[in-house]
Amino acid sequence: MAKIAVYPGTFDPVTFGHIDVIERASRLFDKVFVAVAPSGEKGTLFSIEERLDMVVRASARFKNVKVESFNGLVVKYARKKGARVMVRGIRMISDFEYEFQMALTNRKMARDIETVFLMPNESFSYLSSKLIKEVARLGADVSTFVPADVKNKLKEKIVHEKTS
Amino acid sequence: MAKIAVYPGTFDPVTFGHIDVIERASRLFDKVFVAVAPSGEKGTLFSIEERLDMVVRASARFKNVKVESFNGLVVKYARKKGARVMVRGIRMISDFEYEFQMALTNRKMARDIETVFLMPNESFSYLSSKLIKEVARLGADVSTFVPADVKNKLKEKIVHEKTS
Amino acid sequence: MAKIAVYPGTFDPVTFGHIDVIERASRLFDKVFVAVAPSGEKGTLFSIEERLDMVVRASARFKNVKVESFNGLVVKYARKKGARVMVRGIRMISDFEYEFQMALTNRKMARDIETVFLMPNESFSYLSSKLIKEVARLGADVSTFVPADVKNKLKEKIVHEKTS
Amino acid sequence: MAKIAVYPGTFDPVTFGHIDVIERASRLFDKVFVAVAPSGEKGTLFSIEERLDMVVRASARFKNVKVESFNGLVVKYARKKGARVMVRGIRMISDFEYEFQMALTNRKMARDIETVFLMPNESFSYLSSKLIKEVARLGADVSTFVPADVKNKLKEKIVHEKTS
Amino acid sequence: MAKIAVYPGTFDPVTFGHIDVIERASRLFDKVFVAVAPSGEKGTLFSIEERLDMVVRASARFKNVKVESFNGLVVKYARKKGARVMVRGIRMISDFEYEFQMALTNRKMARDIETVFLMPNESFSYLSSKLIKEVARLGADVSTFVPADVKNKLKEKIVHEKTS
Amino acid sequence: MAKIAVYPGTFDPVTFGHIDVIERASRLFDKVFVAVAPSGEKGTLFSIEERLDMVVRASARFKNVKVESFNGLVVKYARKKGARVMVRGIRMISDFEYEFQMALTNRKMARDIETVFLMPNESFSYLSSKLIKEVARLGADVSTFVPADVKNKLKEKIVHEKTS
Repeated sequence: MAKIAVYPGTFDPVTFGHIDVIERASRLFDKVFVAVAPSGEKGTLFSIEERLDMVVRASARFKNVKVESFNGLVVKYARKKGARVMVRGIRMISDFEYEFQMALTNRKMARDIETVFLMPNESFSYLSSKLIKEVARLGADVSTFVPADVKNKLKEKIVHEKTS
Repeated sequence: MAKIAVYPGTFDPVTFGHIDVIERASRLFDKVFVAVAPSGEKGTLFSIEERLDMVVRASARFKNVKVESFNGLVVKYARKKGARVMVRGIRMISDFEYEFQMALTNRKMARDIETVFLMPNESFSYLSSKLIKEVARLGADVSTFVPADVKNKLKEKIVHEKTS
Repeated sequence: MAKIAVYPGTFDPVTFGHIDVIERASRLFDKVFVAVAPSGEKGTLFSIEERLDMVVRASARFKNVKVESFNGLVVKYARKKGARVMVRGIRMISDFEYEFQMALTNRKMARDIETVFLMPNESFSYLSSKLIKEVARLGADVSTFVPADVKNKLKEKIVHEKTS
Repeated sequence: MAKIAVYPGTFDPVTFGHIDVIERASRLFDKVFVAVAPSGEKGTLFSIEERLDMVVRASARFKNVKVESFNGLVVKYARKKGARVMVRGIRMISDFEYEFQMALTNRKMARDIETVFLMPNESFSYLSSKLIKEVARLGADVSTFVPADVKNKLKEKIVHEKTS
Repeated sequence: MAKIAVYPGTFDPVTFGHIDVIERASRLFDKVFVAVAPSGEKGTLFSIEERLDMVVRASARFKNVKVESFNGLVVKYARKKGARVMVRGIRMISDFEYEFQMALTNRKMARDIETVFLMPNESFSYLSSKLIKEVARLGADVSTFVPADVKNKLKEKIVHEKTS
Repeated sequence: MAKIAVYPGTFDPVTFGHIDVIERASRLFDKVFVAVAPSGEKGTLFSIEERLDMVVRASARFKNVKVESFNGLVVKYARKKGARVMVRGIRMISDFEYEFQMALTNRKMARDIETVFLMPNESFSYLSSKLIKEVARLGADVSTFVPADVKNKLKEKIVHEKTS
């Protein structure tokens, strides 16, 4: 039976850390759905279309990876896709606690879906979309953190924020 | 001398985890005041009256437990009640750090009041009011996380949010 | 391509927590090798034969699981088995740090092998072989922590320790 | 009903941190048994008699505190004493994990006994019997860490170690 | 070559914990710039002028300390000042993770600037500007947490919040 | 006044992680003493002479670094060297707790000596002398973890362990 996995996230924007996890997942499972979540309570810098577009480009070279947006509970989305696995990257203790809590909540709702945690490359262990947006707003060059097209999108967005 | 304890919280809404701590406290102390805090900076989903009401129902079977709202510093409220003990549930590392910091700050303000930490049942260790609201908004059935009346209140509230 | 995984450990003795991880792994992968490590620096209570035997019994009901002992580096063993995945259970922060360090060291030695972390059922999150041996030595009934045959083996072993 | 608590430990030797916890417990409960454990696997520097004697002196001023040694499972000892509460001091994250695991294991064995965690004064948060022995062996003056009689006992013991 | 350090922060408001770190840094380095950051996304209670003023008063007795505000990336500010060192106080695990992530991000942007972590006095380990504002709003006396002039400023500010 | 620092450790054996910290310290301070501790309770794989020799070679290119062995309390050694600073590398949460406890104990014994924490390069964040010895014993090639001469020494030592 083909092993299908879902890798959910906000990807606001996608970073080299996310891409590293996507690559690892693509090697572990037969099919991987990268599931881009709608903006949560706090809002996102990029629209769902922009985020989808950036993840699509970043994942183009992984043949068994498909990028989609989803609504509602991620475990319901996973079931619809026939996925029995949820993938999460884990870098730090604080990640770990939140991820654990989320995974246990998901498990209560869907006993048949298993969360597996992967470690990104240690050189990406400090990367966070939040921090990248912060330093980009302060004028930093973020080309060591995100792909070139994401870097450009970030620059445009931030100029637009400041002039609007 | 009767041992009186205060168990403060926001309870937005009360969960099976909170109720487990209330039960443990009620066995340890002669009298327990569950003290419902006004909404903090971030606001609450339920009004103080709604939260009080839900905690009152959830605590009805514990004879030495009284539920009240309070204003101002919790250590002042505790003193007014003759309580020398503050009860806090502790589930995770991240809880622990915040709780520790809070308890040490309270101790600086009121050396005579001792904070004691209790562990809820491990099957509730992943429960958080925040996460429950999140998944309820996404359409999850939360009956394994909260009492039936809280579940119904949550459903109403969320429908109301969406239509208003 | 069949997905083959290795779940290495000392299993001194196997607990319900380990068995829960074995079950989860057996659902995720086509074939799982449970790899019982020789006793490390600190020695083990049970011999390699005894530990193997207990894990074999505990895993009998999982059809795609095979139990073996191994020597040397676990990544070499994994390669010999055609496994591209190492499975580790993760329960606590302190686990997490050690496991992370181990996984990163393994990755440096074998870039092609991916470590995936699974969460056992939360009711087993407190279980540790070390603690179980400790309380068994003090006379505790350990039947909620380990299978019946392991419980009996533990009892024999401890009586033998005391009389020898 | 009188609230009876047990505060178990190895106390090898007792420190100002332990004494602070004993004092806090003596204010919270009607009766506190400080329960000195036999030496574990790793052995202790001081004999059970020496450790008992030092804890007795350190606790003399707390009228509702009794110091005893115990054997076997601490939950059994607690029951024999009519105690429904186990007290543990908690200072650090690493404490927390071990203590949590221990408390959950105890809970599995004795559902009727509740572990409560107390915070020692923050100025004692770094104290550990292990570290104190380490620095005493290296010639440090430990009078800010332990009572005067413990300091002298430590000195004697260490001289004896070196000359034997 | 003179060793110049930068100690950046929001200081909303400055606490005895910050002042302790400033003092330690002033003993370690030839020159220390305390760099007051503009208000971030979440806003600050005090304006940049007010925060600068309070830090200046708190640092007056340290002769090699200069207090300034800065804009943009802190590593750029550090370079402009000829500083090769960034100082950060570290009190708790949660600090540690964020600080680590920030320091690694800064390192990626400026390999020549080293972040060093200092521990404030353990009696300040629980202090946080956020908690102090919280309890001050609830009417607490904060004179054990902040200097007298900061305490008065806080009081004024909070009265003003409530009446505006 | 020249800033003198001490970087103490067991270095059993020295790793690329230690060398990275030595380099960072050599840039921050005018003079750095790398202080090799005698073997503690648990013993060391390499003798003090062997460990000294390996650290000396690894530090040869840092002109302001001197490698020495020491006995007794490290704070006393630091004072003898005129050092006001102790340097420690910090990689993980578990490091952090132990290091914090050690630093606070040292501070109690010597208020004039400040411990500063440095982060090694993130690619060394998983390295530990203990783990390296473990995998070397299992036959791993450790050339990505330690300098060539240390690798050879390790190999010899381990062959010798097995044949003796």
